[in-house]
This record gives sequence, C-alpha cells and structure tokens, in this order.
Amino acid sequence: MSLLVTGIGELVTNEPSTPGAEPGPLGLVRDAAVLIEGERVAWAGPAARAPAADSAVDAGGSAVIPGFVDSHTHLVFAGDRSAEFEARMAGRPYTAGGIRTTVAATRAASDAELRSRLAGFVRELHAQGTTTFEVKSGYGLGVAEEERLVRLAREVTAEVTFLGAHVVPPEFDGDADAYVERVIGPMLTACAPFARWIDVFCERGAFTVGQSRRVLQAGADAGLGVRVHAGQLGPGEGVRLAVELGAASVDHCTFLTDADVAALAGSDTVATLLPGVEFSTRQPYPSGRRLVDAGATVALASDCNPGSSFTSSMAFCIAVAVRDMGLTPAEAVRAATAGGARALRRDDVGVLRPGSRADLVRLRAPSYVHLAYRPGVPLVDTVWIGGVPV
Amino acid sequence: MSLLVTGIGELVTNEPSTPGAEPGPLGLVRDAAVLIEGERVAWAGPAARAPAADSAVDAGGSAVIPGFVDSHTHLVFAGDRSAEFEARMAGRPYTAGGIRTTVAATRAASDAELRSRLAGFVRELHAQGTTTFEVKSGYGLGVAEEERLVRLAREVTAEVTFLGAHVVPPEFDGDADAYVERVIGPMLTACAPFARWIDVFCERGAFTVGQSRRVLQAGADAGLGVRVHAGQLGPGEGVRLAVELGAASVDHCTFLTDADVAALAGSDTVATLLPGVEFSTRQPYPSGRRLVDAGATVALASDCNPGSSFTSSMAFCIAVAVRDMGLTPAEAVRAATAGGARALRRDDVGVLRPGSRADLVRLRAPSYVHLAYRPGVPLVDTVWIGGVPV
Ligand SMILES: [Zn+2]
Ligand SMILES: [Zn+2]
Repeated sequence: MSLLVTGIGELVTNEPSTPGAEPGPLGLVRDAAVLIEGERVAWAGPAARAPAADSAVDAGGSAVIPGFVDSHTHLVFAGDRSAEFEARMAGRPYTAGGIRTTVAATRAASDAELRSRLAGFVRELHAQGTTTFEVKSGYGLGVAEEERLVRLAREVTAEVTFLGAHVVPPEFDGDADAYVERVIGPMLTACAPFARWIDVFCERGAFTVGQSRRVLQAGADAGLGVRVHAGQLGPGEGVRLAVELGAASVDHCTFLTDADVAALAGSDTVATLLPGVEFSTRQPYPSGRRLVDAGATVALASDCNPGSSFTSSMAFCIAVAVRDMGLTPAEAVRAATAGGARALRRDDVGVLRPGSRADLVRLRAPSYVHLAYRPGVPLVDTVWIGGVPV
Repeated sequence: MSLLVTGIGELVTNEPSTPGAEPGPLGLVRDAAVLIEGERVAWAGPAARAPAADSAVDAGGSAVIPGFVDSHTHLVFAGDRSAEFEARMAGRPYTAGGIRTTVAATRAASDAELRSRLAGFVRELHAQGTTTFEVKSGYGLGVAEEERLVRLAREVTAEVTFLGAHVVPPEFDGDADAYVERVIGPMLTACAPFARWIDVFCERGAFTVGQSRRVLQAGADAGLGVRVHAGQLGPGEGVRLAVELGAASVDHCTFLTDADVAALAGSDTVATLLPGVEFSTRQPYPSGRRLVDAGATVALASDCNPGSSFTSSMAFCIAVAVRDMGLTPAEAVRAATAGGARALRRDDVGVLRPGSRADLVRLRAPSYVHLAYRPGVPLVDTVWIGGVPV
C-alpha cells in the first residue's frame, strides 16, 4: 500500500538533492508531494511530478516538515516542582532540594505510575509533532533504581540514555568518587542492556572532568555512544572532553569559550542548545549564530524535565532560538529536525528522502516560518509516524 | 438542566469571597466543583459542599480556570508578512510597507475570504482557551472599508473596536489632519453601529496627542467606550490622555514614565501589556511588577496581528509575562482573565461566581502555575463557553 501526501504548499525535506528543491539546507519544495510506502518515504518532490499511489491525501496547501527529533529529555520521573519554579520566578530563595526532590519522588513511585506518566508525555510529544525522542535516566541514582528507569524508558523509545552520573545522591554525600565507582561498575552493568547512550553532567557542583572521563570511557567500553551535559552554569572543560571522546552531542553550551566553539566546529560532535532551560531559569541565552557561523552543527532540544525546563514543545524552542539565539527560522527548524537526528547519529529521521522513516508533520500554516512567527500557537495538525497518522 | 463540574484539583475563580477560597486574588479553591445552570455559573466552591445537579462531569483532579479574555486583537485581515518577520529576525532591512501591506491585501480580499480567515482564528482562540475576545478594525482605512471590517468582526464578537485611526493611509500621505476629519466624520458614522469601542494609535509616526484626543472624543460622543494604543515605541502623552478621558484600557505601555504609572494607579484605566509584541519585535519588556506594585490593574492580551505579534496564545503571554515582566504566575493568570475583563469593562466574564458566564477551561495540568511552568505546551483541555463544551 502506498499513500501520496499531496497539495503540500511548502515541503521541508532537509535534503538539498530533492527534485525541485530550492537552494539551501532545508531542501524546500513548493507545491510538493511525498510518497509513503509502508513506514518509509519512497519519493519526495514537486506534486506535478509525483508517482502514482494507491491512495492520496491532500494537505490543502499547508506546510509539511519532518517530525521533530527531540534528542534530550528527562521524562521518567515522578513528583512536582511547580512551587520551586514559582519561587525562582519571584526571586525567592527555595531550598527544598532541587533534583533530589525528584529523585525521592521517583524512587517512591510505582512502575505503574511512572509508566502512566511516561505514556502521557509520549502523547504530548506526538501531539506537538515530536516523532523521535531520547529519554535519560538520572532520577534513580542507585543500581536497581537506574535499571528500572532505563527499562521503562526503553518501552517507549530506542534512544535511551543512562545518566547515572546526573548528580551525587544523598547516600554518597561528600564521596563523589565512590559514587562514580558505583556508576561505572554495577550500575552500568545493569543499565547497559537497555541503553544506547551514556551521559554525564560535567559541571562544577556535579562531576569533574576526571570523573566525567571515567564515566564516559566506561560507557563507551560497554558499547554505548557518548553524550555530555556541559557548559550550563559556566565555561569548563566538558565541551573539549566531549569532542575528544567523539561524543555525538554536547548539550547546553550556554557558556562556550572560543576554543570550545573551534573544537565543536572541527568535530562531528553536535552542539545541542536547550532554549527552554534559559527561558525557565532566566540564564543568558547562548548564541546559536556564533556556532553556525563557525561551522558547528547545532541541534535544538527541549531538555524536558521538572526542574530547569518543563516544556516539551519543539516549536517553542524554535521560536526562542530565533528570537534569542540568533538562528534564522530555517536554521532553527533544521536544528529541531535534522540537527536532533545528527545528535542521535540517526540518518533515517529528521529528513524526508527515499528510504527515510515516514515521520511527517502537517502544520496549520502555509510555511515553516510560522513556527517562529506564531510563538505558543499549536500549529501541529496531522502527524504521521512510520507512515501512520497518530 | 444543571451540570456539576466536579473533581477539580484546583479552581481559579478570581473571586476571593468564594466559599472555601484560600486568601489571595485568585479565589483559589482546592478539590472544588462548579455548578452550571444554562449558560451561567450557579455556584462554585469545595466539591464536598456542592449542590445537587442533573448531571456531573469529573475533571479528574485537573485545574480549572475562567476562560481567557483577550482584550486586544487585530484579527480581520488578509495577506501574509512572514517574510517581513524573517527579515526582522535576521536584522535585515525590510521596506515592503509594514501595516500598509496588510491594508492593501485586506482591501483586496473578499468578504468570504475575510470571514473564512476570521472563523479559523476563532477556532484557534477557542482551542487555546480564549472564550472572550476583542477584534479591532484598522486595515481598511476608508469609510466603506472600515465599515466592512467592523461589520465582519461583529459577526464573531460583541467586543468590536473601531480603529480607523490606526495609521494614515497612503491616500492621505502628509495630511493626517484631513484623515482625522474623515475618521471622526463619515467613517465613525458608518462604523459606530457595529462597534463598542473607539481606539487610536497615539504614537510618534502615527497620531499626535491632539489628533488622538479628537478621535477619542468623537467616539465617546457617538456612544463608544475609549481605549488607546500608547507607549509602544517611546514614552509620550498617550497614557495620560487615556487616563484623562477615562479610557477602559491603554495598551502596550512598553515605555512608561513614573507620572504615567502614577496616573494609571490612580485611575480605572487598565494597563494592558502585550508580551507577544516585545517577543516578536525584540523590544525591551516593560515591567508588569512596577505597575502591580504601584496599584494599577494589569491585563495581558495577545495583540494578535500579522506585523508585530502573530501569537494568539494567552498561555504564551502568561509565560513571557512571568519570565520577563516580573509578574507572578498568579498575577499573570489573573491579568489574562479578570484583567482582560476589566479592560473590556465586563464583570460577567474572567471570573467564576454565581451569575457569571459559564466560560471555563480545564487544563491538562494540576495547577494554573503550569501555564508559566510549561511554556509552549498546549495545556488547554476542555473549554466550555456559556456552559457548552466547544
Ligand atoms: Zn538535561
Ligand atoms: Zn494593537
């Protein structure tokens, strides 16, 4: 069975070699069509040249883009931190524990509760056009607890990241090195079967560069891909460590030195920007412009988590990246699709070309520009995942 | 027929005298219920004390708030200005005409086209929880053209504003006074039957204080309520003119002098802030905190228009007002509901108390705080307008 999505006013393919594409990285085709066979794209190009298909659906002149690829979320958790958010916004001190609050609530939650919340988030992501997403552990911080989180995450996505080295748990207060031993020993052994990635929060107050290197190296030795949280609270050595280890992505990049930018530009490591974090913590925004101009690959992701960024909206991230990070709408949309795919080292998503997954989003808008031009407006209409409308 | 909405985890009534309400301006009741009779609220309070009803619906622990009141939109228009937006975001000059582009496209559009676009916006507003909205004319700028716009607006809302004095149209280039004569003469006569409000853009480059006073006074003499666009591009005399004339609202307030703030605080004129404008034009944000602390009433509105703010999301406005204007989540939610109602001099909406319209929004969230805590996420679930789910 083949399906032709036709009447597409503006099609973003992220594939410059698409027939009829305008020059530019978005591989933009006007008056376009996409042929879907099974769960794959079979063809994309001008509607006037579309092959025959078993059935057809008319997009009514709307824009169609690849589904968003959200390469950074922390969606397996329990509890609520809205009071902490309120206090931060009011400039009031709030000492109720930050991440540790979520760790305690998550440890106390049943599998059924975590599964039910996760299912709610997956519905929310799909409804907003996110068709591929990563989920990190990191609110268990014990062998059985972390194993449970990666196992539950693995039920909803192939992109599972083991983030045992998120923070040092209360049981190891003052002995981070001992905790690192636990992470790279029994915790990694328990978690690796469910995970594709290893991650570490390399930042003053979390893990040192030396500790981070040990965690990432152990993960890589266990067959996991490498990604790093770095540069959130200040510049540090995390970015260069990520590049040195060939990480797929280094995430946050709020504070980057010129050497960091040069290292990223000369590497295959993606710089993943998380606009929701700066928005929700009133941190200064990093310049996406500086990274793009230097030749680095930029991804946008939500970092959806209850502490520092509880948005799950990639459209919101695009709007903020355009306003406050200096990306053009085209660069931001590419960063939220093909950029996210690159950050996950995936070439089958974030792009619409023959052989890629048929993950498409029809917008209630004539152009992808509206994702930045109409901030906060739910513009996602139909979403196809693997060729199936959800 | 009566309907009890029960199982409400957190109910915002904006009525401090509601039975069981916590102290504070939101009139917040936990574990609450609302009794709807016909199109009105008959009772609101703790679920345990709810009266009997013919039928009941369970909100499942979600938060329920009054429908948003968007007191400032420009939704009758045609054309597209996404290219202008892209150029502005890229810092490129763009000289294709601004508002005049929209005027030309709107004049050229058929009634059917304008009606169809307007209907689309109304669906979009309802889906985002906006249950009362104002619509301004101002893209016709001729007698028949403005009359058409207020007539079409009147088909979708009672809150129609005649904004003939939006900008000076090309036909009157260099002769603003002659255009003002047209506005307060035949244009006002043609438009007043469809409008409830008169408005003027009192700003350098638009209309002077003297011209603005003539327009507003003529509108008031014709029985229209007064509202003013002022303080968008720089401080001016527009705010004090609005207060002097007893305007229901002065909108933008991006630049306010201390005297302006004091005048607003000592008046019944609402200061309507438009976070979408500063977001979409990279203007500095005004301080809502300063206004609230001085004792002024603040409203939030979208200013939805294709030039300076194409958002229609009141939730987005709340999130930005909390991050960048210094409002607490409670103040921002109140400003987007009761504040908007005050700006329209309405006491039947923006509040949930016996006798008010049954305009309610159930959120996919346990608390109204999530409107700021989860920026960009579509949290609006069921919307009732006049007691009917839409
Ligand atoms: Zn993170
Ligand atoms: Zn306006």
